[in-house]
Amino acid sequence: MRTIDWDNGAVVIIDQTALPHEERILRLTTVDQLVQAIRMLAVRGAMALGVAGAMGVALAARCAEDSGEDVQAAVNAAARMLEQARPTAVNLSWGVRTALAARAEGADALLSAALQVRDLDSAANKEIGRRGAKLLAGTQRVLTHCNAGALAGTEWGTAVSVISQLHQHLPLDMVYTCETRPLMQGSRLTAWELGRAGIPHRIVVDSASAGLILSGERVQAVIVGADRIAANGDTANKIGTLGHALAAARRGIPFVVAAPESTIDPDTPTGADIEIEERDECEVLDFGGRRVAAPGSRAYNPAFDVTPAELITAIVTECRTIRATLGERPVPLAPRTSHLINGGLA
Amino acid sequence: MRTIDWDNGAVVIIDQTALPHEERILRLTTVDQLVQAIRMLAVRGAMALGVAGAMGVALAARCAEDSGEDVQAAVNAAARMLEQARPTAVNLSWGVRTALAARAEGADALLSAALQVRDLDSAANKEIGRRGAKLLAGTQRVLTHCNAGALAGTEWGTAVSVISQLHQHLPLDMVYTCETRPLMQGSRLTAWELGRAGIPHRIVVDSASAGLILSGERVQAVIVGADRIAANGDTANKIGTLGHALAAARRGIPFVVAAPESTIDPDTPTGADIEIEERDECEVLDFGGRRVAAPGSRAYNPAFDVTPAELITAIVTECRTIRATLGERPVPLAPRTSHLINGGLA
Repeated sequence: MRTIDWDNGAVVIIDQTALPHEERILRLTTVDQLVQAIRMLAVRGAMALGVAGAMGVALAARCAEDSGEDVQAAVNAAARMLEQARPTAVNLSWGVRTALAARAEGADALLSAALQVRDLDSAANKEIGRRGAKLLAGTQRVLTHCNAGALAGTEWGTAVSVISQLHQHLPLDMVYTCETRPLMQGSRLTAWELGRAGIPHRIVVDSASAGLILSGERVQAVIVGADRIAANGDTANKIGTLGHALAAARRGIPFVVAAPESTIDPDTPTGADIEIEERDECEVLDFGGRRVAAPGSRAYNPAFDVTPAELITAIVTECRTIRATLGERPVPLAPRTSHLINGGLA
Repeated sequence: MRTIDWDNGAVVIIDQTALPHEERILRLTTVDQLVQAIRMLAVRGAMALGVAGAMGVALAARCAEDSGEDVQAAVNAAARMLEQARPTAVNLSWGVRTALAARAEGADALLSAALQVRDLDSAANKEIGRRGAKLLAGTQRVLTHCNAGALAGTEWGTAVSVISQLHQHLPLDMVYTCETRPLMQGSRLTAWELGRAGIPHRIVVDSASAGLILSGERVQAVIVGADRIAANGDTANKIGTLGHALAAARRGIPFVVAAPESTIDPDTPTGADIEIEERDECEVLDFGGRRVAAPGSRAYNPAFDVTPAELITAIVTECRTIRATLGERPVPLAPRTSHLINGGLA
């Protein structure tokens, strides 16, 4: 499944605003339509937005060429519009600029550049899955958190890529997908992806993980994505990840972070240096626009937590497997070895 | 605040079906009305139901006396109706039978028996709070889970009783109340109680606890209630409690269970012998009657988890403080030392 793709002159996306209740495919044939889709969060997630930015530039060139307009002017205007669609999404801007580098060579070259961004991202996702599945070979019961699947990337995803490839080698007994309060990405998106892939799964409340992991043999490994990995291996991910790591460590089962190299931030020495985004209280207090919480009560809504490296069995990227609990640290291989953007928080 | 009380010939309850959005007080002047309130869960919680059962019998006697009917016949009929209102609530039945023991002495004696059930429960709640506050003296920032407050008992509650008495001695900086998925007792009920008591609090998603406890000095102690405590101190409580205990142990802060003696089950040797209730999947999959989860996906919904005794700093009851991490175990003082019922899962 590709979250975003190019088909015969159109950018084709799965409309994430309609999921999980409707699988609506949008064919976007103008930059205006794509910008609107980005603004509405019909396409979202760091890696997918990078692809969207690159494809948007290619789309502008194709439209201008078809209508006989000035390609360079159209491409420049499109680049500005796309970047402004979500100004804080660094990866969107990165995708736009990556494609723009081929601007002088014309519309076809721009499209090739965009398709290359897509293909490299997809290949990285797949390689993360391959490495993770090799590391966890034989595992049949896993727990995951939030959505680190195809919907957060271009294709395959990260944690879900590992799960998919494990399932290909030896059918999984069960994937526990934590619902992921407050925004329910696990319940809405990961469960939808697992259902599509025919992988047996159950949705659990986030706080069920400790009981699941520590009682019996229900969970053999925890696999999660990452939003930012510090130079020492400390990993920021969706709130709740740290709790799963504590339970996995107590039980002595693997806790694996699956993420592209771009997620590793060499400029952040440790987890203590990662600023935790606080999101709107209403995400916790309301549900579906209706107040649930006691009137007058307020919420504290941190979006991420930081799992210390010593609780992480391995960080699996498209290039390597870093055994954090063995003292290995993700010091970068070389400046920006990966094609991927430096992961923004998604 | 009393969840249930007797006032001038009426059983007076806070209608828990209207909380937290409306504070509706119901004055129940007939056994039929009380039975209806119990059925509708307007009054709920193990300890409160015990009081309701006892007061129901007293109410029947009073009504019969006022109308010149046969008191014994009315009392017997009421006892059957009350017990059948929630047949699995052992504590309701216990309350009915406790009051019935005074049946031969007439309506006034029945009322005295019912008021004694109320007062002993209230006194036990208060004593639990006093002991817990003494144990945690000086603590100003705590985290709690689910609703172990007045609404789950007659007055004061257990964990919230400790919190209230800490606040009386030294104003608390902050109570983090975990929302408690799937039924949101923390967000709806505990937050409401803390708001009424003027105690500073913030609602957090359940999975935020590990991050809160392990980063900085946000949480100095975790205080929870209990549904059942095994003879060795292993404690079953609302799903999510174990995760908080793991984080508290890693951070080295106190993890305190506040519960009446009746919660200790000498017939259950260890936590492994406690059967975990699985509740309806729709509690996890739907919200407010609307499907949230991906279509076709199923949930696994255990209602409780078991925290091993070695993670529990202390179990505080109305009679004693059991230091579980120091190897103390809640072997019962004597058969059923407390007036309270053997705690059903509430």
